[in-house]
Amino acid sequence: MRVLVIHGPNLNLLGEREPEIYGTQTLADVNSSLSALARELGVELQCVQHNSEGAIIDELHAARNAYDGVVINPGAYSHYSYAIADAVSAIRIPVVEAHLSNISAREKFRRTSVIAAACTGSIAGFGAQSYELALRAVVQIARR
Amino acid sequence: MRVLVIHGPNLNLLGEREPEIYGTQTLADVNSSLSALARELGVELQCVQHNSEGAIIDELHAARNAYDGVVINPGAYSHYSYAIADAVSAIRIPVVEAHLSNISAREKFRRTSVIAAACTGSIAGFGAQSYELALRAVVQIARR
Amino acid sequence: MRVLVIHGPNLNLLGEREPEIYGTQTLADVNSSLSALARELGVELQCVQHNSEGAIIDELHAARNAYDGVVINPGAYSHYSYAIADAVSAIRIPVVEAHLSNISAREKFRRTSVIAAACTGSIAGFGAQSYELALRAVVQIARR
Amino acid sequence: MRVLVIHGPNLNLLGEREPEIYGTQTLADVNSSLSALARELGVELQCVQHNSEGAIIDELHAARNAYDGVVINPGAYSHYSYAIADAVSAIRIPVVEAHLSNISAREKFRRTSVIAAACTGSIAGFGAQSYELALRAVVQIARR
Amino acid sequence: MRVLVIHGPNLNLLGEREPEIYGTQTLADVNSSLSALARELGVELQCVQHNSEGAIIDELHAARNAYDGVVINPGAYSHYSYAIADAVSAIRIPVVEAHLSNISAREKFRRTSVIAAACTGSIAGFGAQSYELALRAVVQIARR
Amino acid sequence: MRVLVIHGPNLNLLGEREPEIYGTQTLADVNSSLSALARELGVELQCVQHNSEGAIIDELHAARNAYDGVVINPGAYSHYSYAIADAVSAIRIPVVEAHLSNISAREKFRRTSVIAAACTGSIAGFGAQSYELALRAVVQIARR
Amino acid sequence: MRVLVIHGPNLNLLGEREPEIYGTQTLADVNSSLSALARELGVELQCVQHNSEGAIIDELHAARNAYDGVVINPGAYSHYSYAIADAVSAIRIPVVEAHLSNISAREKFRRTSVIAAACTGSIAGFGAQSYELALRAVVQIARR
Amino acid sequence: MRVLVIHGPNLNLLGEREPEIYGTQTLADVNSSLSALARELGVELQCVQHNSEGAIIDELHAARNAYDGVVINPGAYSHYSYAIADAVSAIRIPVVEAHLSNISAREKFRRTSVIAAACTGSIAGFGAQSYELALRAVVQIARR
Amino acid sequence: MRVLVIHGPNLNLLGEREPEIYGTQTLADVNSSLSALARELGVELQCVQHNSEGAIIDELHAARNAYDGVVINPGAYSHYSYAIADAVSAIRIPVVEAHLSNISAREKFRRTSVIAAACTGSIAGFGAQSYELALRAVVQIARR
Amino acid sequence: MRVLVIHGPNLNLLGEREPEIYGTQTLADVNSSLSALARELGVELQCVQHNSEGAIIDELHAARNAYDGVVINPGAYSHYSYAIADAVSAIRIPVVEAHLSNISAREKFRRTSVIAAACTGSIAGFGAQSYELALRAVVQIARR
Amino acid sequence: MRVLVIHGPNLNLLGEREPEIYGTQTLADVNSSLSALARELGVELQCVQHNSEGAIIDELHAARNAYDGVVINPGAYSHYSYAIADAVSAIRIPVVEAHLSNISAREKFRRTSVIAAACTGSIAGFGAQSYELALRAVVQIARR
Amino acid sequence: MRVLVIHGPNLNLLGEREPEIYGTQTLADVNSSLSALARELGVELQCVQHNSEGAIIDELHAARNAYDGVVINPGAYSHYSYAIADAVSAIRIPVVEAHLSNISAREKFRRTSVIAAACTGSIAGFGAQSYELALRAVVQIARR
Repeated sequence: MRVLVIHGPNLNLLGEREPEIYGTQTLADVNSSLSALARELGVELQCVQHNSEGAIIDELHAARNAYDGVVINPGAYSHYSYAIADAVSAIRIPVVEAHLSNISAREKFRRTSVIAAACTGSIAGFGAQSYELALRAVVQIARR
Repeated sequence: MRVLVIHGPNLNLLGEREPEIYGTQTLADVNSSLSALARELGVELQCVQHNSEGAIIDELHAARNAYDGVVINPGAYSHYSYAIADAVSAIRIPVVEAHLSNISAREKFRRTSVIAAACTGSIAGFGAQSYELALRAVVQIARR
Repeated sequence: MRVLVIHGPNLNLLGEREPEIYGTQTLADVNSSLSALARELGVELQCVQHNSEGAIIDELHAARNAYDGVVINPGAYSHYSYAIADAVSAIRIPVVEAHLSNISAREKFRRTSVIAAACTGSIAGFGAQSYELALRAVVQIARR
Repeated sequence: MRVLVIHGPNLNLLGEREPEIYGTQTLADVNSSLSALARELGVELQCVQHNSEGAIIDELHAARNAYDGVVINPGAYSHYSYAIADAVSAIRIPVVEAHLSNISAREKFRRTSVIAAACTGSIAGFGAQSYELALRAVVQIARR
Repeated sequence: MRVLVIHGPNLNLLGEREPEIYGTQTLADVNSSLSALARELGVELQCVQHNSEGAIIDELHAARNAYDGVVINPGAYSHYSYAIADAVSAIRIPVVEAHLSNISAREKFRRTSVIAAACTGSIAGFGAQSYELALRAVVQIARR
Repeated sequence: MRVLVIHGPNLNLLGEREPEIYGTQTLADVNSSLSALARELGVELQCVQHNSEGAIIDELHAARNAYDGVVINPGAYSHYSYAIADAVSAIRIPVVEAHLSNISAREKFRRTSVIAAACTGSIAGFGAQSYELALRAVVQIARR
Repeated sequence: MRVLVIHGPNLNLLGEREPEIYGTQTLADVNSSLSALARELGVELQCVQHNSEGAIIDELHAARNAYDGVVINPGAYSHYSYAIADAVSAIRIPVVEAHLSNISAREKFRRTSVIAAACTGSIAGFGAQSYELALRAVVQIARR
Repeated sequence: MRVLVIHGPNLNLLGEREPEIYGTQTLADVNSSLSALARELGVELQCVQHNSEGAIIDELHAARNAYDGVVINPGAYSHYSYAIADAVSAIRIPVVEAHLSNISAREKFRRTSVIAAACTGSIAGFGAQSYELALRAVVQIARR
Repeated sequence: MRVLVIHGPNLNLLGEREPEIYGTQTLADVNSSLSALARELGVELQCVQHNSEGAIIDELHAARNAYDGVVINPGAYSHYSYAIADAVSAIRIPVVEAHLSNISAREKFRRTSVIAAACTGSIAGFGAQSYELALRAVVQIARR
Repeated sequence: MRVLVIHGPNLNLLGEREPEIYGTQTLADVNSSLSALARELGVELQCVQHNSEGAIIDELHAARNAYDGVVINPGAYSHYSYAIADAVSAIRIPVVEAHLSNISAREKFRRTSVIAAACTGSIAGFGAQSYELALRAVVQIARR
Repeated sequence: MRVLVIHGPNLNLLGEREPEIYGTQTLADVNSSLSALARELGVELQCVQHNSEGAIIDELHAARNAYDGVVINPGAYSHYSYAIADAVSAIRIPVVEAHLSNISAREKFRRTSVIAAACTGSIAGFGAQSYELALRAVVQIARR
Repeated sequence: MRVLVIHGPNLNLLGEREPEIYGTQTLADVNSSLSALARELGVELQCVQHNSEGAIIDELHAARNAYDGVVINPGAYSHYSYAIADAVSAIRIPVVEAHLSNISAREKFRRTSVIAAACTGSIAGFGAQSYELALRAVVQIARR
C-alpha cells in the first residue's frame, strides 16, 4: 500500500512560521515522524510540499494511478480553492484532509473548508498528530 | 488514565437510523470496538449517551474531576448548542469532537460546529473509526 | 391504530399564555376534543407535553415501536432544534407538524421551521383545529 | 355555504408533471375528490385553475362577494407574488393556503411563502389530501 | 398634452381594502379629483387599472406614442417586477411613481421599489394626494 | 400658516457641487422659487441650511412650536441618521422628505432613507421641483 | 422537427429600446435571420412574443405536444419567475435559454437566472447571435 | 415580596470557570451577597441553578404563582433559546435579565440575546453586581 | 467622588416625545431624582444633554480629568456612532450605558449598540430607573 | 483567423472524472471534434489545458498578439479567479466562456462566474457541444 | 502651494489614547513633524482637529478656495459618514485619506472606509508616517 | 538595505491594459522611476513580476533571508488569496501593500484586500506614485 502526503502553501516554513499557532517542529520533523508511523503500519509513504495551487492539482491527478490514498493539508487553499476540491472529487482514491491548528477556533474565513466536502473526512487541531491520525484513517479506508 | 466518551442525541438509534448515512453498526458495537482499542492503549474507558443538552453539560462538568480526557459526538447539538460549547470551555481536561459522517458534505446547517472551537480538535467523516481516531488523539494529548 | 400527540414547550400554559395569540382553550380542552375526533376516526390516542428538548426526543424514539403516527407541535423548538428534526428523521412512522398560530405571520424567527423538512407535512394557523387536521392527516397516511 | 378552490400555475399539468414530486393524480381527479368531500360537508364547491398572476388576483377579488371562503394553491407564485398576498389581505373572507408537496423540504426558494402571512393558515406536504384538509379548515372557519 | 395614469394591482378595491392603510376614497373618487386637477393644469387625462403585470407592460408600451407622460402606482409589483421596470426604461416619455402609503414605514419588502430607479422620480405617503403631486411633476417635466 | 425648509449637509454648495447630479441652480435660486410658491399658497416660509446633524435636530425641535410643517432634505444623513429620524418622530407637526436626485437610481447606500419612515411622506428625483412638491404636500396636510 | 422561439417581456420593442444595450435590430429582423438558419438546419420554426408571465407559461405547456424543442429569452422574468421555471421543468422537451446581452456584466439582479437551472443550458451576450446559437443547440439535443 | 433568581447553564462552575472573564467568586458567594441585599430590601429570595433548558422553563412556569419577580441569567441559552423567551412571555410577573460579562464586547454570537426582548429589561457587564442591580430593578417594578 | 450624566439626542424632549415609549417624566424630573440618589450615595452629580455627536465627544474628553465616572444614554447614536464609542475607549474612567426603553424589544436597528462594547456595562428597559441603576453601578465601580 | 481554446483545471481528466456530470468523452475527443468544426469554419485552432491559474493568465496574455479570439472553460476558477477575469479584460481580442455542465443547476458556488462579466458572452450546459457553440460565436465576433 | 491637514474625532487625545494602537506621539508632535516636512517640500501647511462631523464638512467646504489639497484622517467617521464623503466629492481639490493604524487588521467595522472612494487615494498603517506619506502624495498631485 | 518589489498578476501588461484605469506608463517605466528613488534613498532594489499565486508565495519566502523589506502589489489576488496573506504573515520582514488605482472606488469585490491585514500598511490610488510612497514607507520601517 502506497500513501501520498501533500503539504500545501507555506508549510515549508513550518517551525519558523508563527510558532505560537503552528508549533516549533519543522516539516522535516513531521515527515520523519510520519515515515516512522508508516513503517509501523506497513505502508510506503511519499511526502511533497507545494505552494502552487496548480501543482497540488497536478500532484492529485498523478496520485490516482500511483497511490492507494492521500493525506492533504491544503493550508489556506482550504478556504477557497474549488479547483483543488474538484481535483479531489475527480480521482477515485480516498483523500483525507488534515490541519495542524483547530481551524474552527481561528479567523472566520478559516472556519469553512471548501475541500472538506470532497474528501472522505477531516481532522484538525492536533498539531503534527493530525497527520498521524489522517495517515491511520486513510490506511484503514484503503484496506477495506 | 481515564477517558469518557459522550454520545449525543439520536445516537442510541445507531444502526437503525438512516443507515445510508450513519452505517449499520449499533452503538453497542461502536462502544465495544472502542473498549478494545482502549485496552490496547492502556486506558480506562466509560461510554454514555444522552439526548438531553442539559444532561450532556452535567456529564462534562462531572468529568472534569473524574477523567483525563473526553471524546464527544454532540450530534445535532454541534450546530447550535453554545451552552455545551461553554461547558467544554469551562472544564480543563482535553475534549475532542468526533462525527460519524462528513458534516462538511451534508446540509448547510451541519457545516458549522459551534462546539468545535471550544475543543482541542475535531475529526469527522470516518464512521465509527472517527471515535477511534479521537480516542487516540485525546490519549496522546492527555499523556503529554 | 395508535397515534401519539406531542405538545412542546410552554403549551402546558395554553389558555393562560398570551390568549390573543394562542386562544383561551386549555391544553386539557384541546386534548379532549382530539380524543373525541380520535374515537370518531377509530384511533387510539395518547397526548403528552414536554418542556424539555431531550424529553421530546426520547418520546419520539419510544414512539417508533409503539405508535403508527405522531402529531407534534414543537413550539419554539421548531425554529432551532435540529436534534428534534434528526429524531423525526430517525424514526420511520409518519410525523405531522401542527402549529396553533400562523407562524408565517409572526416574528421573523418563527417563519422557518427546521423540523418541518423532516416531517411528512405541516399545518399552521387554525388554532386547536390545526391539531384536528393533523390527526386526520396522520391517520390517513398511516392507513395507506 | 360556497367555497372556491384556486389552483395556481402549472397545476393543470398535474399527474403528468414531475410525478415523483407531485404524484400521478390529475387535476380532474383532485377536483372530483374535493367535490365528493364538499358534498359530504354540505358545501357548494367551484374549482378554477390559472397560470396568470393577474387572473388569480381577479378571481380572488370576484370571490369576495360570491364565496364564503377560498382554498388556494398559489404554486410558484407563493414565493414572490406580493400582489396575490395583497389581494388575499384585501378581501375579507377566509383564505387557506394548500401545497401538494412539503415545501419546507425542497429548494431554498420554496421554503418561504410570501402569501402564507396573508392567509388564515397553511397546509403542506400531504399531496391531494392537503386540499381536503384545507377545505375542512376553511369550512369550519367560515361556519364560526 | 396627454397624461396616462396607471393604477396597479388591487387598487380597484380602493376604499374597501384595508382602509386604515389606504383610506376610504374609492378609485373613482381618486380619478375624478385627478381629472379636476388635470383640467386645471390644461392636461388631457386617461386613467386605467390592471391587476396583470403583462397588461401594465402593454399599457406602458402603447403609451410611448400616445401620451406625453405617465403616472404609475405599481402596487405590490413595485417590489419585484423587473419586467415593468424594463418597460419604463424602454419607453422615452417621463414616468413618475406614486404610492398612497409611506412604503418606507411598512413591511421590509415594501421599502424597496425596483421600478423607482427606472422612473424620473417617486412620491409616496400622501394618500390620494400622491397622485396629484405626481401629476403636477410629470406635467412640469413634459413641458420642459 | 408657517413652514420651515431644512436643507441638510453640502446643500450650501448647490450649483457648484457635482452639477451633473444636482443641477446648476444655487441654493439661493431654490429658496427664491420656493418663496414665490409659498406666497402663491399663502404660506410664510423660512429656509435654513446646516451641515451638522446636531444643528438639524435642534432646528426640528425648535420648529415644533413655531411652524405648522417642515420640508427637509437630509442629504447624506438620510442614509444613517437615526438621531434625526428620532427627532422627526418626537415632534408632532408634519414633516415631508425631499430629495433633488432619484436616490433609488444611485449608489446602493443611497437607496434607503432611515428618515423616510418617520416622515409623512417622501418625494425624490425632480430636482428643485422636489421641494416645491413637498411644500404643496406639507401645506395641504397641515391645512387638513 | 419543430422548434418554438419564445421572446419574453419588452422584446417587442427591440431596436427601439435602449439600443446601446440591445442593438438596433428589430424583433422582425431577428426572427427572419432565425428563420433562415432554421431552413438551413431543416427545422420548422415558430416565433412568439409575450409580455405576460402567464401567457409564457401557457405557451410552454402547449409546446410540449407540438414542438421538439424551445428557445426562450425570458427577459426580466429570468430573474424572478419561478412559475416559468416550473413550467420549463414540467414539460419534457428540451428548452434552451438565450439572452441578447451579457447578463453577468450588468446590474446585480440580472446576474442570476432562476429559469436557467430548469433549462438544458444557457447562452448569453452575443446579441441576436445568441438566438442562433440556441437554435443550433436545441436542434442538436432534440436530434440525439 | 418573593423573588426567584435563576442561574443558567455552567454557572455552577463560577469561580472555577474562565476566571479572567467571569471572576473568582463562586455561585455560593454570589448567592450570599444577593441574600444580604434581599434582606436589606425586605425581600424573600430563592436561588436556583439549572443546566437544562427544559428545567429553566419549568422553573419559570412554577414561579408565576409563587414569586413576584424573577432575575434570570440564561447563560449561553440567551443567544438561541426561543423556548425560554416564550416561557418569559407566557408568565405575567416581571423578569429581568442579568449577565456577568459585557456580552456586547465578546464573540459575535453573544451580542444578541433572544430572551432580552421578552424581559422587562437587561443588565450586563458588572460581574456579580449585575445580579444586585437586577434584584433592585425587579423589586422596584414589582412594588409599583 | 464626581459623576457626569450625559443625555444624548432628543432626550431634552422627554415627557413630551412618544410618551407611550419613553414615559411622561421630563428630563428635569429624571435629573432631580438622580440628584436625590446621588446625595444618598454621597456623590457629586452633573447632568448635561446634547443633540450633537461632536459635543458628546467633547464632553467625554473633558470628563476624563474632572469626573470619576460617567453615565451615558447615547440615544439613537448608540446604533451607529463609532466616534462616540472611540471616545469612551479613549478615556480611562468607567462609563456605563443606560437606556430608558428595552432596546432589544424595538426596531431591528435599535437592538445593537456599537457603544456598549466600549463601556463597562449596559442597562436598558427600566425607564428613568435605568439611570439610577447605572449611577449605582458606576459609583460602585469607581469606588473599587 | 486563429482561435485558441483554453481548457482549465481538471479538464485533462475528462471522460474519467465524474462521468455522470461531465460525460464520457475525453479531452482528446473534444479537441478533435472542435478541430473538425474549425476546419469547416476555415479557422486555425489551437487547444491547451492548464491546471494552474498563473499559466492560464500567461496563456491569455500571449494570445493577445497571436490569436483572433479565445474560447475558455475556466473550470472551478470561474467562481473565484478575479486574476483570470482581469487578464481577460486586459487583452483586446474576444473571449467566450464555455461550460460543459449547466452551472446554474449545480452547487450554489458554481452559479456565479466572476469571469463571465469580462468575456463577450457565456455558454453552459451542452456538454462538448458548448465548446462548438462557443467556437462558432467567437469566429463570428472576430469576423465582424 | 497650501495644504490643509484635518484630524478627525478623538485625535486630540493622541499619545494618551490607547497608545498600544495609536502610539505615544501627541498630535502636537505629529503636526510639528508634518510642518518640518512641509517646509522641506516648500508647502504652506495648516493643521486643524475637529470632533464634530459638521465642523469637518464646513472645513472641507472652506478649503476649496483656500488650499491646493487636503490630507484628512476622518477617524471613526471613516466608517459611516456619507456626509463627509459627499463633502469630499463636492470640492474640486485633491483629498488624501490617512490612517495611523492598519484599519484592515482591526475590528470588522473599521475595514471599510466610506470616505476613501471619494478621495484620490488612501494610506493606512504607518503611524504618524501615514500623514507624511499623504502630504507627499497630495503635494505631488496638486503640482501636476 | 535591500528592498524587493513584487508586481502581481497582469501588471506585465501595464500601459497597455485598461489605460483609463491603470495609466499609460509601462512596468519598465515604473521600475526605472522606483530605481531612481531607491538610489536617492540609498537602497538596493529588485523588481519582479509574477502571474502565478504560487510563484508570489515562493518569492516572499525567499525574500525573508535576502531582503529587509517588501513592496507588493498583489493585483486581483488581493481580494481572495489567503495563501499569499499567510505567506506575508509567515515572514518577519516588513511588507507594504501598494495599489495603482483607488480600490475603494471600484467594483465591490475590489474594496476588500485579504492581504492588507497581514501587511504593515497599505497605499492605494496614486498610480505609479503608490509604489514610490510604499518604498519610502518600507525603507523607513526597516531603518527603525
